[in-house]
Amino acid sequence: MNKPENQAAFTPQVTTGPLMGSRKVYASGCAHSDLRVPFREVLPHPSANEPPVTIYDPSGPYTDPTAKIDIESGLLRTREKWVKARGDVEEIDGRAVKDEDNGNVSAEKLTPPFPKQPRVLRAKGTACVTQLEYARRGIITPEMEYVAIRENMRREAGSAFIRDGEDFGAAIPDFVTPEFVREEIARGRAIIPANINHAELEPMIIGRNFLVKINANIGNSAVTSSMAEEVDKMVWAIRHGADTVMDLSTGRNIHNIRDWIIRNAPIPIGTVPIYQALEKVGGVAEDLTWEVYRDTLIEQAEQGVDYFTVHAGVRLPFIPLTASRVTGIVSRGGSIMAKWCLAHHKESFLYEHFEEICEIMRAYDVSFSLGDGLRPGSIADANDAAQFAELETLGELTQIAWKHGVQVMIEGPGHVAMHKIKANMDKQLKACGEAPFYTLGPLTTDIAPGYDHITSAIGAAMIGWFGTAMLCYVTPKEHLGLPDRDDVKTGVITYKLAAHAADLAKGHPYARLRDDALSRARFEFRWEDQFNLGLDPDTARAYHDETMPKEAHKTAHFCSMCGPKFCSMKITQDIRDAVRAQNDIETGMQDMAQKFRDGGGEIDVAVKD
Amino acid sequence: MNKPENQAAFTPQVTTGPLMGSRKVYASGCAHSDLRVPFREVLPHPSANEPPVTIYDPSGPYTDPTAKIDIESGLLRTREKWVKARGDVEEIDGRAVKDEDNGNVSAEKLTPPFPKQPRVLRAKGTACVTQLEYARRGIITPEMEYVAIRENMRREAGSAFIRDGEDFGAAIPDFVTPEFVREEIARGRAIIPANINHAELEPMIIGRNFLVKINANIGNSAVTSSMAEEVDKMVWAIRHGADTVMDLSTGRNIHNIRDWIIRNAPIPIGTVPIYQALEKVGGVAEDLTWEVYRDTLIEQAEQGVDYFTVHAGVRLPFIPLTASRVTGIVSRGGSIMAKWCLAHHKESFLYEHFEEICEIMRAYDVSFSLGDGLRPGSIADANDAAQFAELETLGELTQIAWKHGVQVMIEGPGHVAMHKIKANMDKQLKACGEAPFYTLGPLTTDIAPGYDHITSAIGAAMIGWFGTAMLCYVTPKEHLGLPDRDDVKTGVITYKLAAHAADLAKGHPYARLRDDALSRARFEFRWEDQFNLGLDPDTARAYHDETMPKEAHKTAHFCSMCGPKFCSMKITQDIRDAVRAQNDIETGMQDMAQKFRDGGGEIDVAVKD
Repeated sequence: MNKPENQAAFTPQVTTGPLMGSRKVYASGCAHSDLRVPFREVLPHPSANEPPVTIYDPSGPYTDPTAKIDIESGLLRTREKWVKARGDVEEIDGRAVKDEDNGNVSAEKLTPPFPKQPRVLRAKGTACVTQLEYARRGIITPEMEYVAIRENMRREAGSAFIRDGEDFGAAIPDFVTPEFVREEIARGRAIIPANINHAELEPMIIGRNFLVKINANIGNSAVTSSMAEEVDKMVWAIRHGADTVMDLSTGRNIHNIRDWIIRNAPIPIGTVPIYQALEKVGGVAEDLTWEVYRDTLIEQAEQGVDYFTVHAGVRLPFIPLTASRVTGIVSRGGSIMAKWCLAHHKESFLYEHFEEICEIMRAYDVSFSLGDGLRPGSIADANDAAQFAELETLGELTQIAWKHGVQVMIEGPGHVAMHKIKANMDKQLKACGEAPFYTLGPLTTDIAPGYDHITSAIGAAMIGWFGTAMLCYVTPKEHLGLPDRDDVKTGVITYKLAAHAADLAKGHPYARLRDDALSRARFEFRWEDQFNLGLDPDTARAYHDETMPKEAHKTAHFCSMCGPKFCSMKITQDIRDAVRAQNDIETGMQDMAQKFRDGGGEIDVAVKD
Repeated sequence: MNKPENQAAFTPQVTTGPLMGSRKVYASGCAHSDLRVPFREVLPHPSANEPPVTIYDPSGPYTDPTAKIDIESGLLRTREKWVKARGDVEEIDGRAVKDEDNGNVSAEKLTPPFPKQPRVLRAKGTACVTQLEYARRGIITPEMEYVAIRENMRREAGSAFIRDGEDFGAAIPDFVTPEFVREEIARGRAIIPANINHAELEPMIIGRNFLVKINANIGNSAVTSSMAEEVDKMVWAIRHGADTVMDLSTGRNIHNIRDWIIRNAPIPIGTVPIYQALEKVGGVAEDLTWEVYRDTLIEQAEQGVDYFTVHAGVRLPFIPLTASRVTGIVSRGGSIMAKWCLAHHKESFLYEHFEEICEIMRAYDVSFSLGDGLRPGSIADANDAAQFAELETLGELTQIAWKHGVQVMIEGPGHVAMHKIKANMDKQLKACGEAPFYTLGPLTTDIAPGYDHITSAIGAAMIGWFGTAMLCYVTPKEHLGLPDRDDVKTGVITYKLAAHAADLAKGHPYARLRDDALSRARFEFRWEDQFNLGLDPDTARAYHDETMPKEAHKTAHFCSMCGPKFCSMKITQDIRDAVRAQNDIETGMQDMAQKFRDGGGEIDVAVKD
């Protein structure tokens, strides 16, 4: 594991610096005074007399101009002292890296190992070192206080908010206290994916009663992409708002690429360990064994992976239920396990060894993302017997994981027409004891390859509204190819808007603050503020520049769609001004409106003059 | 009106030829044997043994390689003989074009007039020549039979279909008969926008019990774009699936540009006549008069505009209700009328002269699109008193229009968070007697400038599901600039997928045919079929080519996301093959599935061996 001489050539280049029009700010903790919880802040133009707008910010130190970014050193390991302070972990040598971990790649093709390998932490003896365990014991960890501050987005307890939504029985608080976070985790309704070996993590929470989160998938494959690209994609994804990132690599160098990603990741990293296990047995599903899988879990847990997708619900008796499907089994992990089960005529080793998996995961606080290996891959297969049989099993497994103190979320579909979406949420809540739901879309039609970020954003916004806690993004390349940098950004922004639409509809307090601030900017022709308050200031500005490139146009009181004469917003402002000049608006117009309302909405023509 | 010598330089270039992988086919009529109803047909690869898939096709002759396209001649005027055969119209000289119709533009800047001016048709005397009038009289017009054939997409009465959806009380038939079309029109629940002067039209129907339609907006403005661009955009929009096109031009040459568009348009053309009227009075809203507006209606009706947006619901007493809004009045037409009302302290002349407007429109069969001038322009303003007061008025006006035999649809919002969307549909159905609803999105959040095709596709799919008959597209440039060709395509495809998602969720019979055909192609690695069955074959193919450019990859039994080892679809097929080889799939697997179902879904571990 010597550092190759050409290592420098491998160092990934990542995008740093603040997003256009915003600056990084931090809030500190109360019970844990050393917390530094990051936010983005957009300051509207001074002339507007508008308060700054605080934006949830998963982008990490990369957007802080004062932070020193060195990909070869990794991020600061701030969490290490929180973990060690609990006194229930020990440093160990850890599992030695094996050639098979990187696909037995030849030396010249080996991605160099990450230069600074931290010591591995593991629970002492049989201790349970999970946030769930602490929550049950009544302990508010620094991680819990951190996410409470983060969710409140610098608002203060008791400050005004608009509570306007339909939450379908959720219990979203007006203000998030650390104690509320602890209770939600203790009840299994929320998780903080936070491996004790991922000390670079800025904790975040996934649960129905918190802001809806989004995940971005990255990862190389046998066909294309490299470590440098994947680290860059991770930084790029969180820059635009991804709350977690899954490394779905399936090619070679899988271990070393993951190391580079985790050491530079301020967000939770998820994986599907069966992918790497399959690489280790030469890609032959039948050759998988519990021992290879178990060793892979330990390998990845010691690296610091925060959540594992485990397809333990793909049971032998469910496989025949997929025989008459239009698209069979479309989950990679699910199909691998199905093939193994059939080849051996045996129950899934993931199901049979589930308690041992729990024992491994609780020693590092790796969270479960119980995989939906039998999710529908087409509109035709949605909500069928195979899908819901697996969901019931995931509910049973949730109880087992909880018994062992392991945090759990549940993966969901997939491809589902709109009228069948709510049943997915309702069944999941019931079957899985309100464990957080984490869905892929769902795509609401199959007929738009190239636009599946949109077919799925429709389903994602809806299921997020109904109660899904995290939405796994879909990029324009879905079904067609590996997403590049542009696709990652498009996928992330699309899912941010879907998650926000869900927060609005759920009535999350303060969700509307940003919409209202942007709409005021729009109405007042504060173009720069409109760009900066949006999810993608660069694109908004570029689009505006295409038709109105001049700097003066950024303050123009009209836009290119209508031109100066036709701008409705300008006319409305003229109306207000005209009426105000007639000393009418404050008294007369309000009176007229009141008269209208008093009259039960009937038209009061008497106000005509 | 002499043809300028440089006319050739003005001739627009438009895209012709079939879409990739599809061919134009026609169905003929029964009662009216001369009907030639166009469709696109995609033929899957012969090896697949799959039936051809018929696709609704608004693209007109431009995608027919046998059609002779000559923009200077315009399309064939097929409908002229249907209209004249009814014996209730007469040829007139029509209103002479005035300089003000083109904004008093100087000769060198004048867009040349369309070369072949057809004779103007108008109802004889006070005859009502609308599809509504004929429907009430029990007459099935060629237009009605045409749309019935079109809606059935070449399926035969009694053929199999999947009726799986939630239609919220709609009355979608299993098979569309001309008589059903007539009944729906007679009840006011559907319209065929078809000006008797738009003889180039291929009739289409807008109604809750038919396929959900989409509209694309084009139009020049004072700031940018030309006639050639707008004609090209129209052809481009319908090529990708726009069912109607609104010409929202507000700059100069407005009359001549519209002429070029209509003479080459196989789809209904809508306008907002107040825009041109305002141009005629120098852009000063206060100077508008009923006479100028009336003259503009006649001008546009004689050209062949199929539907007029008329903001007659913006009444004087409602204007104060907008005073405390975040974004006031955002409809251009609405704000113009509000300004006029306030300046004169008078009720809207559109409202006061509404019956005269009806009399003009019924003489040409121009349909109303009753404008929502007070629609919300931000999440904050959704579903407020101003919006719903106007909606009630639109309901009153609907009754008046129907009294005069004029076809009506109702425009809807706008910006609405998800939890407030359904109330819009429910109120519209009730207030407006089930007249078709035609909404702009709605956008489900304000915070994504640059992505408002997506924020609005979420709302559009939902409100389409709830019963909206036509969805007005939103492009990525919304709020930022004028859409270019790429934006038009993106907007159209995005709205096609939203409309289709709505059809699926409503349970439109056969909506799923295309999804299922595409999913089978996907599962069987028929890449070309997957591209061709999608909404945008070119983009799907280009995305696939980015990572797997070789021709051989088009038949590869894996894709670039996972590579050959990890492809779940390949593994599933392997599973099927393996089980089949064991002579198990037809008997054993089905038995196992049956056992599972018989056991009430309980896990039957006995099937293990």
